[in-house]
Amino acid sequence: MVAVGFFSEVDDPEDWHRALRAALPEAEFRVAPELGDPAEIEAALVWKPPADFFAPMRRLKLVVNLGAGVDSLVGRDDLPPVPIARLNDPGMVQLMTSYVVFAVTRYARDIHHFERAQRRGVWEYRHPRALDRIKVGVLGLGELGGPAAAALAGMGYSVTGWSRSPKHIPGVRWEGSLDAVLAESEILVALVPLTPETRGLIGARELGLLPRGAKLVNACRGPVVDEAALLVALSDGTLEAATLDVFNQEPLPEGHPLWRMENVLITPHLASITVPESAARDVAESIRRVLRGEKPLHRVDPGRGY
Amino acid sequence: MVAVGFFSEVDDPEDWHRALRAALPEAEFRVAPELGDPAEIEAALVWKPPADFFAPMRRLKLVVNLGAGVDSLVGRDDLPPVPIARLNDPGMVQLMTSYVVFAVTRYARDIHHFERAQRRGVWEYRHPRALDRIKVGVLGLGELGGPAAAALAGMGYSVTGWSRSPKHIPGVRWEGSLDAVLAESEILVALVPLTPETRGLIGARELGLLPRGAKLVNACRGPVVDEAALLVALSDGTLEAATLDVFNQEPLPEGHPLWRMENVLITPHLASITVPESAARDVAESIRRVLRGEKPLHRVDPGRGY
Ligand SMILES: NC(=O)c1ccc[n+]([C@@H]2O[C@H](COP(=O)([O-])OP(=O)(O)OC[C@H]3O[C@@H](n4cnc5c(N)ncnc54)[C@H](OP(=O)(O)O)[C@@H]3O)[C@@H](O)[C@H]2O)c1
Ligand SMILES: NC(=O)c1ccc[n+]([C@@H]2O[C@H](COP(=O)([O-])OP(=O)(O)OC[C@H]3O[C@@H](n4cnc5c(N)ncnc54)[C@H](OP(=O)(O)O)[C@@H]3O)[C@@H](O)[C@H]2O)c1
Repeated sequence: MVAVGFFSEVDDPEDWHRALRAALPEAEFRVAPELGDPAEIEAALVWKPPADFFAPMRRLKLVVNLGAGVDSLVGRDDLPPVPIARLNDPGMVQLMTSYVVFAVTRYARDIHHFERAQRRGVWEYRHPRALDRIKVGVLGLGELGGPAAAALAGMGYSVTGWSRSPKHIPGVRWEGSLDAVLAESEILVALVPLTPETRGLIGARELGLLPRGAKLVNACRGPVVDEAALLVALSDGTLEAATLDVFNQEPLPEGHPLWRMENVLITPHLASITVPESAARDVAESIRRVLRGEKPLHRVDPGRGY
Repeated sequence: MVAVGFFSEVDDPEDWHRALRAALPEAEFRVAPELGDPAEIEAALVWKPPADFFAPMRRLKLVVNLGAGVDSLVGRDDLPPVPIARLNDPGMVQLMTSYVVFAVTRYARDIHHFERAQRRGVWEYRHPRALDRIKVGVLGLGELGGPAAAALAGMGYSVTGWSRSPKHIPGVRWEGSLDAVLAESEILVALVPLTPETRGLIGARELGLLPRGAKLVNACRGPVVDEAALLVALSDGTLEAATLDVFNQEPLPEGHPLWRMENVLITPHLASITVPESAARDVAESIRRVLRGEKPLHRVDPGRGY
């Protein structure tokens, strides 16, 4: 038996219990605050646990973040000195890819334009552009950004990707200079993690480098884009439009100016979610590994921030 | 030299001239009404030419329809007794696939719901469903429907396809009974050609077979769906929503009730277009073939209607 502690205010413990039982029958699943003797807990599955949650877990060998983005976890000063893993499951990858493909294609096919024409009740033909003429930049080529960039390239778009280390993704041109990616991206997709380096990554200067009339898709974390600069760029035509799934403050407050902008599409932070059925297998494997003294899957480097 | 006659009120003759010259340097490109001696024309590239257009072309060996849908051509009583070919080019396939992927994903990811929530300025979370739980039906698995169905399956949707003859498309379940496809399709995509058999294919009875709250994407031809039945279904909740690129009358007349329906997305017949650069190669090859007495590529059966 291995005692697994669970804390999340947004994930369903029953779904996780069922999925983990199937993948790791020897797990004894304990949902906070009913953790029994915390000293027995060897693996913790968490999403934003309270301060000092980990302190009494003296036999803890693994923390699994119940999501892909670890920005809310790795900055904590009470992080235990054990491996930290994130989730990565095929269901999550499919969902993020579908969101990005939707948002990019909506702009590539001028749908935002036809929506406005429809409100006025007019048939306003715009000749479609061949997809390989449409330049899409993807910032971040990790577990989610990589497959999203590959899917866009597979559909026919001209895709350039940016990440810290060079990547070889079929159909995707890698570029190490952020300014160079910005200068050519008609549609820019942000899929970097939120870290000290990426906070405010896209500010007024960066938005100004985009081709005039560019579109932005932010599906990673709100603070990666400077919200004040974004509002200005959306108003003065620097940006033609934006699709935003994430914000500085969530839920986006009532009356926030973004709500009323005709050139913004707002979705309530669900570009991708964890699917316990498909994520539990890797969580089980990670628990088995740390019990054998090996490294878990999808390990995070808290120093680096992702 | 081979004289090629061109007639279209919607395609740019200059683009076609340039593309065909690159693919078939021996072509002498003549744009109507400047056809010279029509008896010299051996191949005609046409979109909705006037009555008796073909009559004086006594050496005609091939008619190429400047599009995928031949419904406006094959029913004519002045069709010459020569092979009829349609266009099929990778650019056209990419565009149709992108349109279908966009429209299906917009519903699958509840975007139409978030658009409404945004108009009210409210954050209304809806937990995403795993894509493999979402059942999409594709009617017509031809040059455009086949790749669109394959792309949807590749994204993770649960896809069932319907066509006259059985098809083997990776990830796509083939089903020969229309009623069976309808009964399970939460999102239904119409990509059949307009023929005597498919006119009114989707009427009140068929819409009633769909699961309650289903969505329809019509990207083929307006009359494939009974427009009166469609309006009723969209009003009484039989259909939750529809994305329509084609209509009984185009442009969709001003003041038509569809314009004002909140649950309808209207695009002005451009789900896919012909891209001369990528289509001209096959047109050139077809001309070479008929000059050698062989069959053209992408030949149409006027009796069957597609
Ligand atoms: N909206 C939603 O519903 C939702 C859902 C899930 C996740 N997310 C967000 O999406 C983000 C991306 O997820 P992921 O799983 O793909 O992350 P990941 O696997 O950690 O990949 C991060 C990528 O960003 C690159 N990167 C990081 N810092 C960089 C820097 N300073 N400069 C240049 N490139 C940098 C990395 O480069 P290297 O490859 O060179 O290391 C890597 O390619 C998550 O962190 C999360 O915040 C959002
Ligand atoms: N909205 C736009 O911008 C746009 C652009 C281009 C084309 N289109 C439309 O899209 C249509 C589809 O294009 P395509 O190139 O894929 O056509 P296609 O290659 O001719 O394929 C037609 C498909 O429909 C099936 N089918 C035809 N009649 C049927 C019937 N009575 N019952 C069951 N299945 C039937 C065929 O079955 P079999 O395979 O068994 O023969 C085939 O799979 C075109 O005809 C055109 O009208 C629209």
